[in-house]
Amino acid sequence: MRIDGRDYRTIWLDADGRRVHVIDQTRLPHRFETVRLDGLDDAARAIRDMIVRGAPLIGVTGAYGLALAAGADPGDAALESAYGTLLATRPTAVNLRWALDRVKAALLRASTSERAALAYAEAGRIADEDVACCAAIGEHGAALIRAAAERSPGRPVNVLTHCNAGWLATVDWGTALAPVYKAMRAGVPVHVWVDETRPRNQGASLTAFELLSEGVPHSVIADNAGGHLMQHGLVDLAIVGTDRTTRTGDVCNKIGTYLKALAAHDNGVPFYVALPGSTIDWRLSDGVAEIPIEERGAREVTHIGGRLPDGGLAEVQVTPEGSPARNWAFDVTPARFVTGLVTERGVCAASASGLASLFPDLAG
Amino acid sequence: MRIDGRDYRTIWLDADGRRVHVIDQTRLPHRFETVRLDGLDDAARAIRDMIVRGAPLIGVTGAYGLALAAGADPGDAALESAYGTLLATRPTAVNLRWALDRVKAALLRASTSERAALAYAEAGRIADEDVACCAAIGEHGAALIRAAAERSPGRPVNVLTHCNAGWLATVDWGTALAPVYKAMRAGVPVHVWVDETRPRNQGASLTAFELLSEGVPHSVIADNAGGHLMQHGLVDLAIVGTDRTTRTGDVCNKIGTYLKALAAHDNGVPFYVALPGSTIDWRLSDGVAEIPIEERGAREVTHIGGRLPDGGLAEVQVTPEGSPARNWAFDVTPARFVTGLVTERGVCAASASGLASLFPDLAG
Repeated sequence: MRIDGRDYRTIWLDADGRRVHVIDQTRLPHRFETVRLDGLDDAARAIRDMIVRGAPLIGVTGAYGLALAAGADPGDAALESAYGTLLATRPTAVNLRWALDRVKAALLRASTSERAALAYAEAGRIADEDVACCAAIGEHGAALIRAAAERSPGRPVNVLTHCNAGWLATVDWGTALAPVYKAMRAGVPVHVWVDETRPRNQGASLTAFELLSEGVPHSVIADNAGGHLMQHGLVDLAIVGTDRTTRTGDVCNKIGTYLKALAAHDNGVPFYVALPGSTIDWRLSDGVAEIPIEERGAREVTHIGGRLPDGGLAEVQVTPEGSPARNWAFDVTPARFVTGLVTERGVCAASASGLASLFPDLAG
Repeated sequence: MRIDGRDYRTIWLDADGRRVHVIDQTRLPHRFETVRLDGLDDAARAIRDMIVRGAPLIGVTGAYGLALAAGADPGDAALESAYGTLLATRPTAVNLRWALDRVKAALLRASTSERAALAYAEAGRIADEDVACCAAIGEHGAALIRAAAERSPGRPVNVLTHCNAGWLATVDWGTALAPVYKAMRAGVPVHVWVDETRPRNQGASLTAFELLSEGVPHSVIADNAGGHLMQHGLVDLAIVGTDRTTRTGDVCNKIGTYLKALAAHDNGVPFYVALPGSTIDWRLSDGVAEIPIEERGAREVTHIGGRLPDGGLAEVQVTPEGSPARNWAFDVTPARFVTGLVTERGVCAASASGLASLFPDLAG
């Protein structure tokens, strides 16, 4: 997607085909800087320090990390060590392990002299597959936006989203935002309500930055505002992402998603969740009961980072010194509040039968 | 209520019985400072600059402003001018006009030599009546907390609140927080979930400061978190305030209240609204359709104020430069999501018949 009129992916190769570049997402939205990854340690640090974030992008960065390692030493021992180093950067990232396993398995089948080239090729395939998957989600979701536009001609379609499930979390296009980008490029007028998404503000920072850079009309709102907007007919549909989806269609997404789904349900606003099939956990049936919710540090609630008037970046404390805070990162939206799931294979009902109809090969 | 172990109201007289003191609420929660109001202009500035806030406290400050003016010049012309100056500070504050009208009417019936003393007496009565009203709300609401404690012995009652409807918004006790304070002082163990209440953070700043100062166990949470807490049985009841209440029991409160009420309803959590009868607008039947919602400046969303590591206060921008924001200040929670209204006359159903049963003299 575009930044300052130039097309980017979130990760790309140098002209030499060896070194890897990523966008430093810790500096967004206030500064756009890229970082060059020259070797394994750089790749590990990029993941650990959240220079890259979002499950698909973390996976691809890990894959390129193995390629950088194989370029330096393609031997079995070095490879296993690099695998361990990269996996340890974000031990709970399912996608990271999957990507590392895939590259490692391919390399172990090859002679050491072929491994570096093979690793770059495999990492590149993983990246391209992610782009194709997101693009397909985008096309299927754009049809929903187009249909909404036909129901309300002469004004933009108002889409509400929560957190950042945009191209910065993937290699390109994104998941929840891919339909918006595809609709825009197809000439459908769109306006996006961007939940700021406290406490980490991924909406106010990353989603707003993406939409601004791509020229998509949008307005940042407090997370508290969505219900009021829906009560007054100012939201045509909501689209969010999901980190984990049960076989029954419950979705686990950034904290606060559930509240918006409740408001959408109360006001008859369609509430869609965009996801690659890979986020479906086919073992789970009851999201609220079965999905453990990560609790993060209180400081994300008590302090907020941003840009000072002089341009410097700083954190300010918003709570009184001594007041405790709690910080659960996700919540579960039960399937009964989800209008439909937008996947790379099409749109289905948020139910076991809906998902089984699109993924008969996986539903078992 | 207590700050640093000392009892305060939000507004009080000097030992000389003439000059007025208030807490500078613009500095909270990071600095506790009081401001002395020596005359009309100081009182007007205190209201205009939001050194004092909250409808009841603004009304009392206005009343004392007229007293300060009468002390300087009790003539009719000076009084009318002072009335106009004070009213213009917050032209939409219904309570301010009501308090100013009450004091002015009393003064115009008296000779100029009696007016200053009369004005102080009337302002004092308004303050005392507010304290009595809030204390009564507190007693009625505390009974609900006590009942919840009996249903779950051996652990604190978890109360969720939104925004600041505490003693800092009134003269003492508060509305939504009065039941918490009364329950605590009666020995009922309580823990309060404090919604930070973006964009102005009245929860994270004022409510947390109040609870911390009073020694009430509490945890600040992002506004997004309440639904997750309710799904997991971590909220026993919610209590919020209201700026305006319809005769049918719809409540207009700080933006985001509606989302919490939806989650409470979905999870069987009682959702109470505390209010003085004076906030009921007996002309209104449909809150969503009839109550106009104030839209405030975008800067409250794009920028957040707080304390820097060096102790200085600063504002940081959280959105990318160029991203627009919208900022509606209130939303309406329909009566069907409200378990009960807690008033100075008791608790009633959020309905026309419920309110008429408590306020037969006003329901007409």
